[in-house]
Amino acid sequence: MKTEIKTVLEAVKNGKMSVDNALLAIKKEPFEDIGYAKIDLHRGIRQGMPEVIYGAGKTAEQISGIAEKMKQRGQNTILITRLSPEAAAQVGAMHEMDYHAEASVGIIGPMPLADGIGKIVVATGGTSDIPVAEEAALTAEVHGNEVVRLYDVGVAGLHRLFAHLDEIMSASVIIAIAGMEGALASVIGGLADCPVIAVPTSVGYGAAFGGLSALLSMLNSCASGVSVVNIDNGFGAGYLASMINHMETK
Amino acid sequence: MKTEIKTVLEAVKNGKMSVDNALLAIKKEPFEDIGYAKIDLHRGIRQGMPEVIYGAGKTAEQISGIAEKMKQRGQNTILITRLSPEAAAQVGAMHEMDYHAEASVGIIGPMPLADGIGKIVVATGGTSDIPVAEEAALTAEVHGNEVVRLYDVGVAGLHRLFAHLDEIMSASVIIAIAGMEGALASVIGGLADCPVIAVPTSVGYGAAFGGLSALLSMLNSCASGVSVVNIDNGFGAGYLASMINHMETK
Amino acid sequence: MKTEIKTVLEAVKNGKMSVDNALLAIKKEPFEDIGYAKIDLHRGIRQGMPEVIYGAGKTAEQISGIAEKMKQRGQNTILITRLSPEAAAQVGAMHEMDYHAEASVGIIGPMPLADGIGKIVVATGGTSDIPVAEEAALTAEVHGNEVVRLYDVGVAGLHRLFAHLDEIMSASVIIAIAGMEGALASVIGGLADCPVIAVPTSVGYGAAFGGLSALLSMLNSCASGVSVVNIDNGFGAGYLASMINHMETK
Amino acid sequence: MKTEIKTVLEAVKNGKMSVDNALLAIKKEPFEDIGYAKIDLHRGIRQGMPEVIYGAGKTAEQISGIAEKMKQRGQNTILITRLSPEAAAQVGAMHEMDYHAEASVGIIGPMPLADGIGKIVVATGGTSDIPVAEEAALTAEVHGNEVVRLYDVGVAGLHRLFAHLDEIMSASVIIAIAGMEGALASVIGGLADCPVIAVPTSVGYGAAFGGLSALLSMLNSCASGVSVVNIDNGFGAGYLASMINHMETK
Amino acid sequence: MKTEIKTVLEAVKNGKMSVDNALLAIKKEPFEDIGYAKIDLHRGIRQGMPEVIYGAGKTAEQISGIAEKMKQRGQNTILITRLSPEAAAQVGAMHEMDYHAEASVGIIGPMPLADGIGKIVVATGGTSDIPVAEEAALTAEVHGNEVVRLYDVGVAGLHRLFAHLDEIMSASVIIAIAGMEGALASVIGGLADCPVIAVPTSVGYGAAFGGLSALLSMLNSCASGVSVVNIDNGFGAGYLASMINHMETK
Amino acid sequence: MKTEIKTVLEAVKNGKMSVDNALLAIKKEPFEDIGYAKIDLHRGIRQGMPEVIYGAGKTAEQISGIAEKMKQRGQNTILITRLSPEAAAQVGAMHEMDYHAEASVGIIGPMPLADGIGKIVVATGGTSDIPVAEEAALTAEVHGNEVVRLYDVGVAGLHRLFAHLDEIMSASVIIAIAGMEGALASVIGGLADCPVIAVPTSVGYGAAFGGLSALLSMLNSCASGVSVVNIDNGFGAGYLASMINHMETK
Amino acid sequence: MKTEIKTVLEAVKNGKMSVDNALLAIKKEPFEDIGYAKIDLHRGIRQGMPEVIYGAGKTAEQISGIAEKMKQRGQNTILITRLSPEAAAQVGAMHEMDYHAEASVGIIGPMPLADGIGKIVVATGGTSDIPVAEEAALTAEVHGNEVVRLYDVGVAGLHRLFAHLDEIMSASVIIAIAGMEGALASVIGGLADCPVIAVPTSVGYGAAFGGLSALLSMLNSCASGVSVVNIDNGFGAGYLASMINHMETK
Amino acid sequence: MKTEIKTVLEAVKNGKMSVDNALLAIKKEPFEDIGYAKIDLHRGIRQGMPEVIYGAGKTAEQISGIAEKMKQRGQNTILITRLSPEAAAQVGAMHEMDYHAEASVGIIGPMPLADGIGKIVVATGGTSDIPVAEEAALTAEVHGNEVVRLYDVGVAGLHRLFAHLDEIMSASVIIAIAGMEGALASVIGGLADCPVIAVPTSVGYGAAFGGLSALLSMLNSCASGVSVVNIDNGFGAGYLASMINHMETK
Repeated sequence: MKTEIKTVLEAVKNGKMSVDNALLAIKKEPFEDIGYAKIDLHRGIRQGMPEVIYGAGKTAEQISGIAEKMKQRGQNTILITRLSPEAAAQVGAMHEMDYHAEASVGIIGPMPLADGIGKIVVATGGTSDIPVAEEAALTAEVHGNEVVRLYDVGVAGLHRLFAHLDEIMSASVIIAIAGMEGALASVIGGLADCPVIAVPTSVGYGAAFGGLSALLSMLNSCASGVSVVNIDNGFGAGYLASMINHMETK
Repeated sequence: MKTEIKTVLEAVKNGKMSVDNALLAIKKEPFEDIGYAKIDLHRGIRQGMPEVIYGAGKTAEQISGIAEKMKQRGQNTILITRLSPEAAAQVGAMHEMDYHAEASVGIIGPMPLADGIGKIVVATGGTSDIPVAEEAALTAEVHGNEVVRLYDVGVAGLHRLFAHLDEIMSASVIIAIAGMEGALASVIGGLADCPVIAVPTSVGYGAAFGGLSALLSMLNSCASGVSVVNIDNGFGAGYLASMINHMETK
Repeated sequence: MKTEIKTVLEAVKNGKMSVDNALLAIKKEPFEDIGYAKIDLHRGIRQGMPEVIYGAGKTAEQISGIAEKMKQRGQNTILITRLSPEAAAQVGAMHEMDYHAEASVGIIGPMPLADGIGKIVVATGGTSDIPVAEEAALTAEVHGNEVVRLYDVGVAGLHRLFAHLDEIMSASVIIAIAGMEGALASVIGGLADCPVIAVPTSVGYGAAFGGLSALLSMLNSCASGVSVVNIDNGFGAGYLASMINHMETK
Repeated sequence: MKTEIKTVLEAVKNGKMSVDNALLAIKKEPFEDIGYAKIDLHRGIRQGMPEVIYGAGKTAEQISGIAEKMKQRGQNTILITRLSPEAAAQVGAMHEMDYHAEASVGIIGPMPLADGIGKIVVATGGTSDIPVAEEAALTAEVHGNEVVRLYDVGVAGLHRLFAHLDEIMSASVIIAIAGMEGALASVIGGLADCPVIAVPTSVGYGAAFGGLSALLSMLNSCASGVSVVNIDNGFGAGYLASMINHMETK
Repeated sequence: MKTEIKTVLEAVKNGKMSVDNALLAIKKEPFEDIGYAKIDLHRGIRQGMPEVIYGAGKTAEQISGIAEKMKQRGQNTILITRLSPEAAAQVGAMHEMDYHAEASVGIIGPMPLADGIGKIVVATGGTSDIPVAEEAALTAEVHGNEVVRLYDVGVAGLHRLFAHLDEIMSASVIIAIAGMEGALASVIGGLADCPVIAVPTSVGYGAAFGGLSALLSMLNSCASGVSVVNIDNGFGAGYLASMINHMETK
Repeated sequence: MKTEIKTVLEAVKNGKMSVDNALLAIKKEPFEDIGYAKIDLHRGIRQGMPEVIYGAGKTAEQISGIAEKMKQRGQNTILITRLSPEAAAQVGAMHEMDYHAEASVGIIGPMPLADGIGKIVVATGGTSDIPVAEEAALTAEVHGNEVVRLYDVGVAGLHRLFAHLDEIMSASVIIAIAGMEGALASVIGGLADCPVIAVPTSVGYGAAFGGLSALLSMLNSCASGVSVVNIDNGFGAGYLASMINHMETK
Repeated sequence: MKTEIKTVLEAVKNGKMSVDNALLAIKKEPFEDIGYAKIDLHRGIRQGMPEVIYGAGKTAEQISGIAEKMKQRGQNTILITRLSPEAAAQVGAMHEMDYHAEASVGIIGPMPLADGIGKIVVATGGTSDIPVAEEAALTAEVHGNEVVRLYDVGVAGLHRLFAHLDEIMSASVIIAIAGMEGALASVIGGLADCPVIAVPTSVGYGAAFGGLSALLSMLNSCASGVSVVNIDNGFGAGYLASMINHMETK
Repeated sequence: MKTEIKTVLEAVKNGKMSVDNALLAIKKEPFEDIGYAKIDLHRGIRQGMPEVIYGAGKTAEQISGIAEKMKQRGQNTILITRLSPEAAAQVGAMHEMDYHAEASVGIIGPMPLADGIGKIVVATGGTSDIPVAEEAALTAEVHGNEVVRLYDVGVAGLHRLFAHLDEIMSASVIIAIAGMEGALASVIGGLADCPVIAVPTSVGYGAAFGGLSALLSMLNSCASGVSVVNIDNGFGAGYLASMINHMETK
């Protein structure tokens, strides 16, 4: 923003722009400028940052078109979430894309190198939570993180979780994903010494109420360092984990 | 019931009672009889079974009066729950009573010997859950059970829970009491090989919603052998635990 | 666990294993060991204990594969819950299996003899609750219990319930299953002198809110000895009932 | 309404009123007329019908003033609900009034004779429901009904309810009042052959959620002939019961 | 019940039955007797009372079978609710049946004559509420009531409601059916001088929350004489209305 | 109403109508008259006011029939909301109609000229909110308003919103449409100096709970001048905005 | 904003300010400028616009201090909402203030003349809604509106509402305030031809759930032109009504 | 853990400990060891880490006692949250303590130097959110962070927020605290390029439902990088922010 306004000011100073025109220029663009400034800054600092397309509610044509434009702007890697197998088949016919069916995620372009502080652990309570977990894990990987997957380590069988105590104790960030009673976040939060991002899932039935039970449970976690994102929001957790895992490189 | 109706039938047979009077006698009392029969049966088998007064909403005078009648009927031990310190002072002036302030429980008469199958473990997530836990523990003790108290062993500090793995693995019944995220029930349910009675408590704030979070969490427990009673219902858990712990002597 | 660690310790003592290798061995497996220890202990005591496969969300191939491995490990009886007719047809082609369509339950291998303390009564409020009830009943039977089925004995027609007063009064454990207003649990809890496991069902419409009404009703039961499991959780109730019905043989 | 408009029309016909004035007269009052018509009709048919003052949120002075006006209009009997002991003392100093403290109800003037079809049974699940029950019972009595009180006949002790089967089977209308699980309405609805008005109460704790549990339970009653009024609305139940109990005399 | 037990008692008196056999006979049947007694009494008083089959969740074969048995027992008129067009086609092939598609109601046998106190008004807020209304209206008609249908008279167009003020003022019972904001019940309750049965419907979207909004609105009605049944429960309302409309003939 | 009753009154005055017939005439129609009066008044003032058909739950035949009648009554423009593509095809075959597929809106007849005070801004948080927005925008246009569409200006990218600050600052009324967290209404309410009508949408997943999150958020808006309509109620917002935007011409 | 930035630009042009200083000046204040610009614009157009202090959670000293500063800035009229009697006494000692106890509203300075398009009607369902209504009415008056109060015209006694049909039909904006079932908004929305702002109140008990019932009811209103503000938000309704009532003078 | 078990193993190897005693030693302590290991690790890395006492529900004596023990163990700085003024007075009499009344926080011992990656911004929507914000800010400061406070920058006055754009754009972590509609988190999340921890507060009334509205709003944030903690949980947010702000020094 500074640069653009400075250009205007200097044009005024040099008599190349009238005061009224300058006023109009400043009045019209400031917020857009701020916005672009932010995006540029963002991209300038960490090259290779992927762009993201939220695939739900978009046609394969729309997704392909957006991806095409991103590539034309020089984007290397594009992450497409909530991409149905049908749409994936169509998008895949037009772009070279890796489709991860379980996560409903498509990735166009190369995976960046992992350059974070440490490893991100993605843990799930059960096998039914894996789709959300893979969305989180792939999101983290595509943003340049090494990911350790610990699936099906729910609290009803603590020995499975404890067999991986080393990974948990040495993680940089942990994403704890669970439906039903959502106790995994508290247990991991009590063991680990790093930020824990809890993702409730809509897995379960009856009093699980579509993820509400796990959500409330996670919000009430008595362990420190735990915060929560929306039900089934694997992308949000993966993105935030990457942000935290790149703190030192800012 | 059988005995009473049999007496009537024999009186009819012997001509000592008219058919109409017999009819009236049978019609009037059957349900009351069934009720008493049940109580008698119950009491006959396990002598020393206490009677219970739910103190909430009763005046000290009412409680004293009920206790007096129970004693006159030959009751040895009387358990009074939800008894405020003020009411306890008044009742205590009229009956020899042990008052357990933290549990708001008063006990008149001697504690019975523990004659259950094994030990009942009463575990809590935090220190704020102790009033509910003590209501449960005292209820179990007054019904003839040995109780092991494991307080403040919540899942955010698993080492405290695991330091008592022996007690948990060898328990006959476990009462798991927790507010907030209520994860304790699932963790214990996953470790133990006995029935676990989960008691959500109203401890917590914000999204704890007065115990709702813990309640839903416990109902969704992925561990087998876990069932749930009402929020803060220490008495109900203690009573049921005693019932289960006396299964073999039935 | 004891045995395995003891073996390691003795190997160290005898110089057959270095301290570092011993450390690694103990560090790697302890929790898994504990887990297996628990399972072994469990299995050691009561031979014939079935393993359980939760069929929901698994393909017929996955279920068949898991069952195959279980059989190879020497498992006699395998219970598969939430098994759709389509999956059942496929699994049934590869394993000798009894499929109970109403309960969506498949059983591979022989039913064990009933060796519990007494009988487990499974009662339902209506005919629509029968699928949940059959899941509970078959789970109990496959774990070695004699089951008495009392279906459609809801409180709007108490005479049907009371016609079976003998079964209720002499039960070892009762599973009370009802949707809509869920009053059955309270009524049975008031009549019976044994643990009552209440299962709310999602039967009903409107203000039944998918089982919420029955769930709250059961949690608030004014009868002692009643506890609650998740909505439609027939398996959980059957498993817990079996646990309680085998208390004396522990 | 008819009479008043007819008067206007005749005045127009006779030239005693201009068309414009008539138009104004008709336009201004019609709804008020309808309202009064209704009240008059109502009162005309069943003499002795009391007026009701909802005491909550009114000062003793306001209540006294309203009562004074009602008496001046010739009202014999006045029912005041939700009247606190403090307000009752003040109102009682100015009017001859029977104050029923448990129900928070004051009655000025004589009780009418009972002239309904039959008896109204007011039943409660527990003793804590009695304040609501007394509001219902007194409301029914003051509207000319004979009331049978069956208190503390909750479903956890069916024998107490069944000891009064005669009253239930012969009632004209039954008001079933219960908190906690609210099962009483369904049980009575299943036994009785008359309209059952269910009143959930806010009695209970935890998952009773201030009467929500009982409310949902009653709405889901599987018994025919049951309808529900608001939580703790004893007056509404008593008024409706009286309406039904006077059906034949309309 | 009386008769049966009296027979037993006389057999005992006459020595035709042993005391033990008598005991067994009394103990086994009493509740069933009570149940049948009730049904008989019920049927004895008002001949022509239909039986009801709740069609939801039953196959066409099951429905046909039940209807067949009812007819063999001498039942003239049978009401089948929640009967899908497909099932209706099959049942209709085996029984002479009038199928009311909008209400999903089938009626086998003749309609009884209307013999109630007065007319039952069935009013709806909108046209989408008509299926519930027709279920209520047909239920009332099949139980011997004259029904006046006032459809689409919701409060957003009061003139349509007020055009039928005569019917409302002269009704014996009114069933007020509405979704969305459910205000119809209060408005009618304020106008009419008879019992009003409110039926919330699941009509609406968004904050209608499947009928919850209308349900709460109706429970909070400030008009006297209003009670509420479950969401979409047209049958319940029709049945209760008939019960009230036959009060004087009891 | 005035006119019709005046006619009656004058007929009475002139002796052309008896008092009784006049009474009947006034009694029978008044409310309908009021209704029509209102509609007429309404239509009289602003010619070209469209009529509206709510298409949901109506068949194409019904819609066509209603439209036909409206046209016969001289209606120029007819707005049909919630019109499915299938129904649109059928209606379109019988009437000349513009079908706006994204909004599920059909418009028969010409668009009126915009004659409001100023412009109505329709803003959405995301692209998924556009169907609701188009229903609002078309409703406003068909009622004679100039509409400015600002789509996808959600608060997570404020620069997009701020690029249109001029439109927002100069709007006459703003409709702010958003799902998920619904923050758009508050942000616009803080910027603008005109009435803001907030429309929560059911866009989102998990804790969006079908629009509940956005609804609560909008109701709690800390900005003045914001009010809320039902979830997804684009029509209601467009209609109210038009009403406000025509305030000065009343 | 324009003026301030123009001054800076001209200073740059004239060489009186360096480009860097200009950049700093523009960068530092823009948003504050925008904010003030908005307020100034606002105030410039309609002199006498009051400022508002939300009294809840502020001490009497804080309120007095804020009011003092406002007066020093030349503010004539200051509206203080949610002002407790205790705080009012203290504030009143330091400022000449009219305190409206029922509304908990204090007004410092003169009431402005009413200069709106028409009259604002404030209607309530009951007398308990009056505090909220007075907050709305006083807010409207202090913003320059003529207010007509129609209190206690709830739908259970429509004749009271209809006695004021003239006021309703001729209103410019109507604020409909009701607790319990909240039907008033729909009824008024159906009668009136102007924007209706619905305010749910927390009046009621039981299933009123603190205003939730009225809130949902109002959101589901089937009448067009109705929008809703937060529970008990009289100020918000009064402010928005004034905004709408001043549309033509903008 | 490694060290301790290694010691045991070496003692076994050296014959200084029997295999059985070693088994007992390993079995008894492992989990406690893990716990202590974790704490030590934690403390070893970042000296000056404070200990925390949750003051709610503890007496002043208990708090003083715990603090005394902590000091004896060599703890420099102790943070006490939820400390009432009364308890603070008593604790302050025994320990040198800074009491921050608005935050209900007491701090014993010196503040550590700020050694985090960057600055933590604590922003609130309104002034009523400040107590929660101060709890967060002091928690962060006491854990070694520089904190920038931006209070009362809610979205209804964006200019106040934007006047601090520099702080927001350059923050390391942002804590966004808001009640009512909770939009602040989304707006900040859209502007900032760092992790945002959202804290809903219980500020507000009516449909704020004790923080539920803000909670849902924040969970649904459409901005990336936002996660949520429990309602009013300032401590949790401050602790997590510190954890993230110390990522690089781990």
